[in-house]
Amino acid sequence: MDRNVQLPPQLIRPFKVAPSSRSLEAEMPINDISQHFPKLADTSLLECVEGGKELGALRVGVVLSGGQASGGHNVICGIYDYLNDFAKGSQLIAYLNGPKGVIVGDSTEITPETVDDYRNVGGFQWLGSGRDKIEGEELLSKAFKTVQADELDGLIIIGGDDSNTNAAVLGEYIAEHGGGCVVIGVPKTIDGDLQNAFVDISFGFDTATKIYSETIGNICFDALSAKKYFHFIRLMGRSASHVTLECALQTQPNFVLIGEEIRDKQITLEEIGQDLAKLVIERNKAKKPFGVVLVPEGLLEFIPEMKGLFSQIQDLVSAKKEVRSNLSEEALKTFDSFPESFQAQLTQQLDPHGNVKVSQIATEELLIRLTKKYLAEAGYEGTFNPLGHFLGYEGRCGPPTDFDAIYCLGLGRVAAALVGARLNGYMSAISGLANSPDKWKPFALPLVSLIHMEKRHGKLKPVIRKALVDLDLLPFQQFAKQREGWKIEDQYRCPGPYQFTGKPVPPKLLEG
Amino acid sequence: MDRNVQLPPQLIRPFKVAPSSRSLEAEMPINDISQHFPKLADTSLLECVEGGKELGALRVGVVLSGGQASGGHNVICGIYDYLNDFAKGSQLIAYLNGPKGVIVGDSTEITPETVDDYRNVGGFQWLGSGRDKIEGEELLSKAFKTVQADELDGLIIIGGDDSNTNAAVLGEYIAEHGGGCVVIGVPKTIDGDLQNAFVDISFGFDTATKIYSETIGNICFDALSAKKYFHFIRLMGRSASHVTLECALQTQPNFVLIGEEIRDKQITLEEIGQDLAKLVIERNKAKKPFGVVLVPEGLLEFIPEMKGLFSQIQDLVSAKKEVRSNLSEEALKTFDSFPESFQAQLTQQLDPHGNVKVSQIATEELLIRLTKKYLAEAGYEGTFNPLGHFLGYEGRCGPPTDFDAIYCLGLGRVAAALVGARLNGYMSAISGLANSPDKWKPFALPLVSLIHMEKRHGKLKPVIRKALVDLDLLPFQQFAKQREGWKIEDQYRCPGPYQFTGKPVPPKLLEG
Repeated sequence: MDRNVQLPPQLIRPFKVAPSSRSLEAEMPINDISQHFPKLADTSLLECVEGGKELGALRVGVVLSGGQASGGHNVICGIYDYLNDFAKGSQLIAYLNGPKGVIVGDSTEITPETVDDYRNVGGFQWLGSGRDKIEGEELLSKAFKTVQADELDGLIIIGGDDSNTNAAVLGEYIAEHGGGCVVIGVPKTIDGDLQNAFVDISFGFDTATKIYSETIGNICFDALSAKKYFHFIRLMGRSASHVTLECALQTQPNFVLIGEEIRDKQITLEEIGQDLAKLVIERNKAKKPFGVVLVPEGLLEFIPEMKGLFSQIQDLVSAKKEVRSNLSEEALKTFDSFPESFQAQLTQQLDPHGNVKVSQIATEELLIRLTKKYLAEAGYEGTFNPLGHFLGYEGRCGPPTDFDAIYCLGLGRVAAALVGARLNGYMSAISGLANSPDKWKPFALPLVSLIHMEKRHGKLKPVIRKALVDLDLLPFQQFAKQREGWKIEDQYRCPGPYQFTGKPVPPKLLEG
Repeated sequence: MDRNVQLPPQLIRPFKVAPSSRSLEAEMPINDISQHFPKLADTSLLECVEGGKELGALRVGVVLSGGQASGGHNVICGIYDYLNDFAKGSQLIAYLNGPKGVIVGDSTEITPETVDDYRNVGGFQWLGSGRDKIEGEELLSKAFKTVQADELDGLIIIGGDDSNTNAAVLGEYIAEHGGGCVVIGVPKTIDGDLQNAFVDISFGFDTATKIYSETIGNICFDALSAKKYFHFIRLMGRSASHVTLECALQTQPNFVLIGEEIRDKQITLEEIGQDLAKLVIERNKAKKPFGVVLVPEGLLEFIPEMKGLFSQIQDLVSAKKEVRSNLSEEALKTFDSFPESFQAQLTQQLDPHGNVKVSQIATEELLIRLTKKYLAEAGYEGTFNPLGHFLGYEGRCGPPTDFDAIYCLGLGRVAAALVGARLNGYMSAISGLANSPDKWKPFALPLVSLIHMEKRHGKLKPVIRKALVDLDLLPFQQFAKQREGWKIEDQYRCPGPYQFTGKPVPPKLLEG
């Protein structure tokens, strides 16, 4: 694809790192986890600034971890470019099919030809990806052997919250065992839940939400034209509702469920059903027997009565116990209110994180059932033709938007510079993404500043907490202010296919 | 949306009509239907050529009929522009919510401001649409009263095969009853089944298939990256498999079902299931437990044993009889082989044409079941994680591609010129669309040249036969030549979002 993707000058020049004038402490509380990460505990926020110099030849490893996100290939191209420009003679070793590739030492060297083939191309098929984790003494030691055998100066792990936690754990392990190789993380995930004061948004979010918004906008216009169907559209994005919120701001549908609001306001499944039935009735009164409703994938986990059910199901399935007969009375009541097909979706195999596979639960169908139920209870006799949709896989591997394309080239360049500076346990970060790229600011963010120790299955584990939608911040506030107007009047927006103009358009969530 | 949509010079100048040097007879057999259309029977193919003159003020009506297709708004803009440029003082009256608007006289006048609001905007929400038909003495006479009351010189009906047949019937009726208003058709449908020697493709097909291809390509790359899922993607497009064939050529998935091939080769449901199971087994041997399969919406109607079942169901449902107990022995056997949810989809309310609502039958789920069945029979113990998708509504209302945007402005201008030339019962047609727009050739195509009389429910009715995929023509031949290579090797293409460059890219089906 012929693309005009140009990096701004400050991302092209060689970087050096310097203490940042911005304070990490002021932005985010650092919990004392020094005992868990003694080698990484002495950290401070660093800025990448001009004035970097040519480096000697480096051997750098890179691995893609977890779910696909557009721009992943550009991160690798960015690393390659920076090494090629400022560390002549370097080699970039790519580990195949995710962290497993590091564990077993399955790799290939990146060549100039492949870089040309994959620049600005979506997907993770260049290297493949995987959800394995490098944890526990055995796997950590195997990974360490691989980086030693490959004589790496640095390993760059491109992944989400779990993978970046993993990067810190591996960085600590290597340093404790003699070092020689630093570990750098790059913030990836379409879900948008890897966010903090220096990571405005993870890469892949922009492309995914622009793809979903194109589809949702088209469906909105179809609803408005056909005046016949109520579309219930479930959106990928795991627990957090960032994807749904962004798509809502982009397309202005009639009704939007935000998981975090439902949790904070303790809204029950019944209340959601009642609200939906009310919407149908009111729109029908306005001669509008159609509409568009957005549903975040992780909705159910936020609903008070479902949260308990999910947690019981997770425990029972992972213990390989029969589910129904072992549920508490209250959970059983909720469970039995669902149709069989839905019960089967709830109790299927867990995902590799031990969670119910939310992407395979047809929440939109459940909401349609609920709406019908409460419409019937209200004695409604008008039209209600619901259609369910799930938007997910198609958002993870599209060609990166200009925003993600440039952002990822930048993230890759910064990551390479951090390896060159021999920084261990840092995340490549670029801040100020709401501005035009010439105002973006690259940072080296200590991973441990993001990490908390949490009890999981009785054990203390390091985790980077997922950033959920904050109801007090501007994006949700803006949405909350506008949504009443979207309910009956149709203020649909149809943004159309994203265009490659060379001028990135940041996600709306970054505004303000 | 700021768009650079420029008409080529030959579509901007005023048209006059002249007998075409191309022969209609050579291209398509004209059956003798003069007794049914005495007023329209004297027809000949006309070309729109340069040298048209300014016209007096005209009163022109326009109506959108049937399912949404991108570019509909541009047709209206094209009509408006032509009248505005070459028939000063004209008025364009838009009938609302489809043919019903003509029957009951519900209309609004198109103003310059609304034209600016809807130019290059997808959807049919400007006027709304509907599936009513103007047929039978009562409705025809009502429609005639409306065009008389509105003092129309011409009525332009934008629609598919049925609506264009309807245009001829109404044109004939009006002419027989004193005339005064001509009727012109414009070929619309995303299904691509309104095709002939002068209509290369109906408008809306290009946008829909580019939207679907974007999604399919993204899913292909996701499959290749995750190496985990078998995606079964069903595509809108009613009976004909043109949409599926175009998307297949655009994205090169592993397996593609073409309804017309299945009919011609009498391939059974069992054989399809066996083929799919074989694909899964072979790909698994190649360490590829993933893949992408395209399924046309109308598939089932082409499968020998299903065709009979469908026809029995249609008769029983329209006669309001219980289905299961009244099926023939053979049909019952097929019916009973399906799960209940699928039986319910088959026997639901019919569409307004009296057909089973194919868009609401989850054929992809049926194929997944079949694949599992034959995998089990083959003793397969490998991985098979199927995911079903349906791409439909999101393809009908996207912003028109440059191809559809320019094509539709052209179709509208030609339609207006045909009203100006007082031609009755003609279709606005532009041929040569595979070339750059400056080589496109506008025609006035007599509607009756497309019409055949067919027995429907025991009555002789005029119909424009749907153009199905022709296995002897180049598009299918090209596909057939390539598809073996797509099965195991992954030759996926991910075309990405369509771009607004001002240079239209015609559908691949028009090549050759």
